Amino acid sequence: MVGYAFMGAAHSQAWRTVNRVYDLPARVRMALICGRDTGKVADAADRLGWEAYTTDWRDLVARDDIDVVDVCTPGDSHAEIALAALAAGKHVLCEKPLANTVEEARAMAAAAATARVGGVRSMCGFNYRRVPAVTMMRDLVAAGRLGVIRHVRATYLQDWIVDPQFPLVWRLRKDRAGSGALGDIGAHIIDLTQFVTGQRITGVSAVTETFVKERPLPVDSHGLAAAVDGAAAPADGPAPATGTVTVDDAAVFVARLDGGALATYEASRFATGRKNALRVEINGSLGTVVFDLERLNELDFYDAALPPAEQGFSRILVTEGDHPYMSAWWPPGHIIGYEHSFTHQMRDFVEAVATGTDPTPSFADGLQVQLVLDAVTRSAELGSSWTEVEPALATVAA
Amino acid sequence: MVGYAFMGAAHSQAWRTVNRVYDLPARVRMALICGRDTGKVADAADRLGWEAYTTDWRDLVARDDIDVVDVCTPGDSHAEIALAALAAGKHVLCEKPLANTVEEARAMAAAAATARVGGVRSMCGFNYRRVPAVTMMRDLVAAGRLGVIRHVRATYLQDWIVDPQFPLVWRLRKDRAGSGALGDIGAHIIDLTQFVTGQRITGVSAVTETFVKERPLPVDSHGLAAAVDGAAAPADGPAPATGTVTVDDAAVFVARLDGGALATYEASRFATGRKNALRVEINGSLGTVVFDLERLNELDFYDAALPPAEQGFSRILVTEGDHPYMSAWWPPGHIIGYEHSFTHQMRDFVEAVATGTDPTPSFADGLQVQLVLDAVTRSAELGSSWTEVEPALATVAA
Amino acid sequence: MVGYAFMGAAHSQAWRTVNRVYDLPARVRMALICGRDTGKVADAADRLGWEAYTTDWRDLVARDDIDVVDVCTPGDSHAEIALAALAAGKHVLCEKPLANTVEEARAMAAAAATARVGGVRSMCGFNYRRVPAVTMMRDLVAAGRLGVIRHVRATYLQDWIVDPQFPLVWRLRKDRAGSGALGDIGAHIIDLTQFVTGQRITGVSAVTETFVKERPLPVDSHGLAAAVDGAAAPADGPAPATGTVTVDDAAVFVARLDGGALATYEASRFATGRKNALRVEINGSLGTVVFDLERLNELDFYDAALPPAEQGFSRILVTEGDHPYMSAWWPPGHIIGYEHSFTHQMRDFVEAVATGTDPTPSFADGLQVQLVLDAVTRSAELGSSWTEVEPALATVAA
Amino acid sequence: MVGYAFMGAAHSQAWRTVNRVYDLPARVRMALICGRDTGKVADAADRLGWEAYTTDWRDLVARDDIDVVDVCTPGDSHAEIALAALAAGKHVLCEKPLANTVEEARAMAAAAATARVGGVRSMCGFNYRRVPAVTMMRDLVAAGRLGVIRHVRATYLQDWIVDPQFPLVWRLRKDRAGSGALGDIGAHIIDLTQFVTGQRITGVSAVTETFVKERPLPVDSHGLAAAVDGAAAPADGPAPATGTVTVDDAAVFVARLDGGALATYEASRFATGRKNALRVEINGSLGTVVFDLERLNELDFYDAALPPAEQGFSRILVTEGDHPYMSAWWPPGHIIGYEHSFTHQMRDFVEAVATGTDPTPSFADGLQVQLVLDAVTRSAELGSSWTEVEPALATVAA
Repeated sequence: MVGYAFMGAAHSQAWRTVNRVYDLPARVRMALICGRDTGKVADAADRLGWEAYTTDWRDLVARDDIDVVDVCTPGDSHAEIALAALAAGKHVLCEKPLANTVEEARAMAAAAATARVGGVRSMCGFNYRRVPAVTMMRDLVAAGRLGVIRHVRATYLQDWIVDPQFPLVWRLRKDRAGSGALGDIGAHIIDLTQFVTGQRITGVSAVTETFVKERPLPVDSHGLAAAVDGAAAPADGPAPATGTVTVDDAAVFVARLDGGALATYEASRFATGRKNALRVEINGSLGTVVFDLERLNELDFYDAALPPAEQGFSRILVTEGDHPYMSAWWPPGHIIGYEHSFTHQMRDFVEAVATGTDPTPSFADGLQVQLVLDAVTRSAELGSSWTEVEPALATVAA
Repeated sequence: MVGYAFMGAAHSQAWRTVNRVYDLPARVRMALICGRDTGKVADAADRLGWEAYTTDWRDLVARDDIDVVDVCTPGDSHAEIALAALAAGKHVLCEKPLANTVEEARAMAAAAATARVGGVRSMCGFNYRRVPAVTMMRDLVAAGRLGVIRHVRATYLQDWIVDPQFPLVWRLRKDRAGSGALGDIGAHIIDLTQFVTGQRITGVSAVTETFVKERPLPVDSHGLAAAVDGAAAPADGPAPATGTVTVDDAAVFVARLDGGALATYEASRFATGRKNALRVEINGSLGTVVFDLERLNELDFYDAALPPAEQGFSRILVTEGDHPYMSAWWPPGHIIGYEHSFTHQMRDFVEAVATGTDPTPSFADGLQVQLVLDAVTRSAELGSSWTEVEPALATVAA
Repeated sequence: MVGYAFMGAAHSQAWRTVNRVYDLPARVRMALICGRDTGKVADAADRLGWEAYTTDWRDLVARDDIDVVDVCTPGDSHAEIALAALAAGKHVLCEKPLANTVEEARAMAAAAATARVGGVRSMCGFNYRRVPAVTMMRDLVAAGRLGVIRHVRATYLQDWIVDPQFPLVWRLRKDRAGSGALGDIGAHIIDLTQFVTGQRITGVSAVTETFVKERPLPVDSHGLAAAVDGAAAPADGPAPATGTVTVDDAAVFVARLDGGALATYEASRFATGRKNALRVEINGSLGTVVFDLERLNELDFYDAALPPAEQGFSRILVTEGDHPYMSAWWPPGHIIGYEHSFTHQMRDFVEAVATGTDPTPSFADGLQVQLVLDAVTRSAELGSSWTEVEPALATVAA
Repeated sequence: MVGYAFMGAAHSQAWRTVNRVYDLPARVRMALICGRDTGKVADAADRLGWEAYTTDWRDLVARDDIDVVDVCTPGDSHAEIALAALAAGKHVLCEKPLANTVEEARAMAAAAATARVGGVRSMCGFNYRRVPAVTMMRDLVAAGRLGVIRHVRATYLQDWIVDPQFPLVWRLRKDRAGSGALGDIGAHIIDLTQFVTGQRITGVSAVTETFVKERPLPVDSHGLAAAVDGAAAPADGPAPATGTVTVDDAAVFVARLDGGALATYEASRFATGRKNALRVEINGSLGTVVFDLERLNELDFYDAALPPAEQGFSRILVTEGDHPYMSAWWPPGHIIGYEHSFTHQMRDFVEAVATGTDPTPSFADGLQVQLVLDAVTRSAELGSSWTEVEPALATVAA
């Protein structure tokens, strides 16, 4: 694994747990963790349960006894690491968004397609697909229970930078993070809604905004800022007191899906009181589903096939043995948390690698999300004009 | 009053009740009701409590003992009736949307401004401003409790035409209704959010859609279709089995407000399971408010001024004596319904007329909403390009 | 009608509205209202819409052109008025609880049975039976949708006397009110749960408590105290500053129902934050229903006959045309309020009187609730020992 | 650790995780697990991460390199194991309820008190005390934020044996489980409410019921039945098709607390649709708190010290860094699950053992819960008569 901050901790918890909960055809060995700071990565290896550590990610690629490389770094290094790992025949799990640019994502999807011929697997880490309620939504749509999809409305709202004195952490710098709320959390709702509906976004009209344009440079960090690694101050000259925010604080867009639905999306870090509020509602001609990540054990389902007087939004507690991923966990009604989505992801990834099948979402799926992010960015730059999402198939041509 | 269908019944209930609940400087006499069908308007007069009826709205304008004309017809006759009433010195309450076109709305706002000089009052019937929780939201914003407004997200979702066999009632015909979901329910969330934030929408990027383009012509009608009056079939030739839907089924748009906020709006009649789901969330730098018309007695308020560990969305039951409009109603926690918003509206209208002050929302406010609707329509026609809302001040020039 | 305070206002609103909303075989004339204070009852007559007023309830009984007497006074005068009215051949609607003592209630039930032979109708005003969601719960149980009832849990929580400085209004005096939270709001949940389940409470084990034993005597009153009429201070000697609370602040009890269910009940005026929180949950072998009066337009229904993975608590918005009482009101999703339960009650009462059928709940039903209240009181006095509910059939023997 | 079923798995997950998440003064080694079935315990050791296994719990007590014994067996073996472990100087964590009888619990509490003199620690595993929202409730009460406690209402509702064909697992047999819903889940709400209020239950009036008295004997088991170990069928003679349920299906009781509050409790396995519904509401003179285990990341807090018009039930997402136990977990709004309460429990236990302080709840606390359970059982047997809870101090005399 490369990276030991927030995502590294979440992935490690999942790697440690997956074989304890699920019967799998392979057993995970947590061989080597990589990070830039020797002291910190050594501590992380010890705390998170890795056998060894290194400060050079090339060590993971070089070792023959390592089969899988898990990329948990900021987006600017995804492409380099993943491409090297695939070239070396390692199965790769790469955090989302797949890359910081469409070009990188195209290269990664192409490399994944090539490697696949040789039996090398790759997966993009949109972990929320494995929240049982989300998987169940997808299953309901796939079974036709919602009929023709008419509307998608998706928001991912947080509030951790409402305070203008919150520092300029790496997630607020375009060179490291690629984009702001859009790529960090907007990417999740783009992938999730496409996954659940089985449809693709074809065009968007977008507005983005940076409400607070200058922020103090960070000294120390924690929480969502945990992934800051290295100094945020520029190398040349004395550290200025503040720096410019180069990413969006919020992004809103309307979209059309290829199945005919209208959609609205909003990603923001300025929604006071909303801590991790990924909410999705999908209206079809036969029913509606609603999901809220802050209550991830629940799914609201409106089934228009029931007798009219009895129709209502049913709060399904997706914690039972007959719900996706849940038979291995606790008794009825005992809820799971955020981190379990990663354990489920690892289960499916390990199973795919061990049985020689393709895990999803693929790098091509990751590229498709990147293409939507790119269309959103272009639309916003062009004054919210309607912007088609570039086809992923161009990959083939490239 | 002109009109005796859904809106006519709601207004009558309020006119009958307002003096029973509130101490007012004037007492309402329900003198004359007008409708096109003699039998139906006679029945309505009897049932709804009007002293007399007529089939010609000019009778209301002509009678000296009538001070107020309440216009509850479909939008295509608003302008003609309101202009005549104002010219005759009658105070006018006109249902929303103010008119079917910007031109009509401009003429009405101009006439209202002229009439006002002579002490004639006018008001546009955006009744939801008088839901106590909505008034309270406005008060919180006005008191600075939300700080700088960052986000507005507003949806008004219904599902009464999801079935493709639902007939082509007047609300689905552009010549009668002006527009579809946009003007009918979208107008409400445009007005409500501008009212609560005290800001105006300056530009939009919109998509509209008509999911079901042909529908059977109506034979009979009831419920939301209740206001159908007159035959839907064209006069020349045999009645066809179906007709073309000439309005939008749904409209979605992103917007900017003049105070710097980003906003998303959605109005739809295709949101399965959502019956009357007007929902508004407003995020400010110091707090958030959330309102849901299906639970109109409640207001969710997140106050970021509280100690961090105790911050949360507080479900305020807006039913107490110290809440707007509520001291006259029932004991603590005894909820009110949809119709009460009209009683509150009549209270403020009667009070304004009796005391010689201007009620709000004015016809100018109604015009401003019309200008937003117009910008949305133009943006949608131009492929979702960014479209500025025309300034209302042009009225003066006109 | 006798009484013009809180209940009088609520009943008047319903009497004024019922013929406007429902097609009924008779039209209501609001002929005469009675109250002890001439000035106040004159004002009430004018405000509430009564043709005339009197300070002697015997005038209602004496007038030939009056068919119905509606008793909205405190419980200590129910028996006297109702017995006289029945004897005079007037149909009687009497507010709950039917009386302040079992003896009075027995006499009233007996008189009602006698009068019934002569075609005189009587009804006890448990208005919550006519909240559409409550009626729907009853219908679901009656249709067998819940299977065998296993549990009933009912609470009616308010908080209007948490402050020890809240004055000693009539509702806190045993001689006027009969009991405290128990008879005022506990009576509602006793009736409601027996109505919904179709079962009777057979025995109870109870605890009651008066948390604040001395309170200041009232000077003025409003809100829930609105029904204070006459001075609260004793006649002999100068008015003391405080008086003794002679009723319960809260009552809790466990019970058994004759169908085998276990039940818990709680009525309290000391539940801080709970304004009018009547909540009932009923678990059966095939399903569960949950109701909350503060969200009276909703019913939660868990249907264990659905596929296991799709079972959940369905929030049914009981506002549609196919729900009880609702077809006459507003379009889909437009909610009603507390007062509508009275309009529904008047609809059924008028219909029963006009068609010569028996309205429910009968005085016998009111007596049965009184018998439960009596068992609760006795159990509490005997240190919470198990106490059987006396059979109502003794009425016949009497 | 003794036991490898449901509780064994939950504890193992916590033991594996605690040092990964928290900085602690000691590191946990998972040395030895014990179970009766050799094959199953061997599998469990491997799966759950224990270094070795045994079928004789005396091996844990005998080994010098083992400092802590964690007792996760059914209640009938708690006393024997815990007493031996304490006598051998092992720190003991014992699952709840502490024992199956008051006598056993007294002996255990006495042994714990004796062992404590020698620095040996003991703790009873009421894990829900460590749900952050529950800890926060206790902190609010302790800080006086609720004022004088007036009401406690607590329910723990499940539905896993509603089906009469569900088999007679060990939890339905008095000889193994001690009692039914009462001891299994009722014990949790007794401890939790006493913990949060800081008050003790002094007397109860109870009803218990066994709705389904005969059930098929189990063949295989899973889920909540997972802890069945050994055959359920009697050894002598052919296995009968069914057996008698010897525990309660449900228990309801009213209670008084030593601080003057009234309380209601209900534990049931027959509440259709309620999967793991531990719900507690506590009303004080200054505020109210509400907790629901199915939404364990949330706490509803009504603060009557806020301005009246702004008072409401605030849904606090107890997931932030300034909430109990949460700073070590994920970023804002990322929820935790059921199992985390055990990790928190292990954190506090390890810290107490390592620093030589007493963990809570103590065995004396466990005994106090047992005394309440005993009073409930006796009250139910005596026809719901009021029954005082025996004082725990008798322990000292014993």
